[in-house]
Parts: sequence; C-alpha cells; structure tokens
Amino acid sequence: MVKVDEGDPKYGPLEAPYTKLYSFGTSNGKKIFILLRLLGKEDYFYRPMDMEVEMEQKQSWFIKLNPNGRFPVLSEVDSNGKQIILHETGVISQWIADKYDVERKYSYNHDDPLWWEQSQWLTFQVASHSPIQGQTHHFQSFSDVDDEYGKKRFQDELKRIYDVYEKRLTINNGWLVGDHLNIADINAFPWVSRCEFAKISLDEFPILKKWHDKIAAIPEVQEAMLI
Amino acid sequence: MVKVDEGDPKYGPLEAPYTKLYSFGTSNGKKIFILLRLLGKEDYFYRPMDMEVEMEQKQSWFIKLNPNGRFPVLSEVDSNGKQIILHETGVISQWIADKYDVERKYSYNHDDPLWWEQSQWLTFQVASHSPIQGQTHHFQSFSDVDDEYGKKRFQDELKRIYDVYEKRLTINNGWLVGDHLNIADINAFPWVSRCEFAKISLDEFPILKKWHDKIAAIPEVQEAMLI
Repeated sequence: MVKVDEGDPKYGPLEAPYTKLYSFGTSNGKKIFILLRLLGKEDYFYRPMDMEVEMEQKQSWFIKLNPNGRFPVLSEVDSNGKQIILHETGVISQWIADKYDVERKYSYNHDDPLWWEQSQWLTFQVASHSPIQGQTHHFQSFSDVDDEYGKKRFQDELKRIYDVYEKRLTINNGWLVGDHLNIADINAFPWVSRCEFAKISLDEFPILKKWHDKIAAIPEVQEAMLI
Repeated sequence: MVKVDEGDPKYGPLEAPYTKLYSFGTSNGKKIFILLRLLGKEDYFYRPMDMEVEMEQKQSWFIKLNPNGRFPVLSEVDSNGKQIILHETGVISQWIADKYDVERKYSYNHDDPLWWEQSQWLTFQVASHSPIQGQTHHFQSFSDVDDEYGKKRFQDELKRIYDVYEKRLTINNGWLVGDHLNIADINAFPWVSRCEFAKISLDEFPILKKWHDKIAAIPEVQEAMLI
C-alpha cells in the first residue's frame, strides 16, 4: 500500500492511486467541476479550500503544491505512487481531457488541427478574459475604494472581450471551437455566468447570451455550478 | 503556383509555402522574435504592424486573422496552400517549438512529463504575468490619469508574481522548467526586461535578476531584442 503525503493539514495522506482536487466554488473552480461532471468522473477526492477565513491557498504547505498560491490544483497519483501536480485551469482542463475524455466528447486530440484552435481559445480565456473580468469584478463590485477610472477601464475592456466572443460564436456557428461544447467554452462559461458582478448585461451580447443559456440548460452543468 | 490572400493591404498575397509573422517590437512581439532567432529560423516574412498611427491591429482585415485585434499573429501555409493562423503568444510558441525545434533545445515534447510543467509556466506567464505587468505599465508609466489606487494595486500584484518566479527559480536551479532555457523562460524574459516601466527594480529579486542577466547575455537574444 502506497500513501502520498501532500502536506495537507486537514486531510491526511491518501492511498494511491487517486485524484485529488483542491478547489472551491469560484469561477475558476467551477471550470473543473463542470468538466469532471460532464465526463461522469466521480471517483476523485474533492478537497474544499477555505479561501476566506484561513486563506489556505496562501499557507506554506499549499505554496509547495502551487507557488502561485491559487486553486484549483489537481494532484494525480498512479498506483505506484508516481505523482503529477497541476495548476492553471487551462492546463488542468487539457490534462483531464487527455486522460479522461477518451471519446473526445469535449476536447480535441493533439494530432487534430482543431487542437490548435482549442489551445488558442483556451488561452484567450485564461490570458484575456479571466484576468480582465476578475479586475472588473473588483473595481465594480468588491473594492472598498470607489475608483471611477478603474471601473470604466476594466468594464470597457471586458465589453470588448465579450464582443470578441460574440464575433467568434457568430462565424463559428455557436461554439468557440469546432461544432460542439469544448473545454474552451467550459472555461469561459462560469465567468460569463457571473457577469452581474461586472455590471454587464448579456442582453448587449445576444449571441453570447444564446451560447450561455444553451450551456446553462445542461443538467450536468447545473449540478456542477451548485458545488 | 499557389498564392494565398490574407487581406493585407500593404503586402500582397505570398507564394506558398511560407511563414508570415505579423508583429512589432513590443514585449509580446519579442517573445516570438527571440524563439525564432534561437532556432535559427530566418526564412519567414516579418510583417511589421503599425500599432500607433494606423492602429492596423484593429483594422477589419486584421480582425479576420485575429478577432482579438492583437499581434503577434503567425500565418503558416504549406506547399498546397493549406493555412493555419495562430494567435496568443503561448500557443504560437508551442507551434514553433513543435514544428521547428526538432531537437527540443528550447521545449519539451507532448509525451514528456515536463511538457505539463512547460504548459503550466507558459500559462502562468500569459495568464498572470503579462496581464498584470501590462496594467502596471499603464498605471505607473503611461496613463494620463494619476490613479494612486491602481498604481499600487497592480505594482503590488506584480511584485507578488516576481516573487513566485523567484521561488520557482530557486527550487528549480535557475530555470522555470527542466534544466535549461525553455519557451516558458523565453515568454517571461521580454516582460521582466522592461520592469522599469513598472517602477520595479530587479535588485529586489536577486535570483530573478540572475536569470534575467543570463538570458540577456545570449547573443541571439540580444539580436532579437533589437528588432
């Protein structure tokens, strides 16, 4: 019996093989919950992170897992105790897709030309969309300081980003990549679904709204959004 | 003879096969110039973008290449005229690595476990480092409005990010991934080298400074930084 100690002070070492997901119900957390739920993968250990009171994501044991001090983090251990630890939602999504989406229902393979489109829209999501929407939430809804300049700067940029999605979904028949729901859409969805914190209405973006509502109607997505 | 029309109003259709790089000497532009120069790839058509007077990156012909209206964009056309257009520097770097870094001098293959570390640090660069340093440059050096709150918010976050690099380089013997210069380092370097616009001194981050100076001393890097 092989056990791996990840330094987690609340939950002791687990017996290999296992998949452990350090996460919580934030927009970045939901990206991975949705993907796992759609794939029907339930045999993983969900380790909820206390991000507010204990700030567990900034504690030294967690920094060893992700020096950036952010979740989700995925730890995957095979039956020999060989471990891989992954951070960054785009990369975790690709890992899960490669390992558990064997039928490629929500992703494309490395040798498929659409893999490159998938990587581009996944990168656009994590490099442009998430950071800007995160700042917009802060300035519009959560900051103690009323900063008019920051409020407008980030909301304007987020509207531009939503317009990029609007155009892309229009020319690509309603999905970001290929002809069906994909990890790029799955990464974008939880953020778009929280646009009220950015003080933006999807009514301004009818094609994006249609895309959002289509995904929001999927039972597995609804279940994952409640975690 | 196959020619492909990319809608470029200044440079007409090129004869296949070809590699065309729409770019300019910004930090994001330099990421790709450095990689190509290190690989000794010189047979590409460099299409300089006028980003200030004509704002070419926002013109309709360019939006067809990248709906996000940003460069660099790489267009690669094979001898049959089959084309792939790539945006997002992390993805362009991976494409160039897969196609032209056949000896894997600056990258790792998909079947190497280090590929996942490469993806993580590349994603950290494009999703955390670039967006935050871009905002820090704006608030600290380029905004017409003196916004003390924004100045501090982004500079503090950028210092935190530099500290993540500092810790990573310390435990990983001076490189972000594996034991030598890699596309993750190459993507981070041009941004770190412009930290004066963020009003940050590398003297605060001695390990990062050593990493920076080591890369800055490479002749091919010096040549690419002048483009």
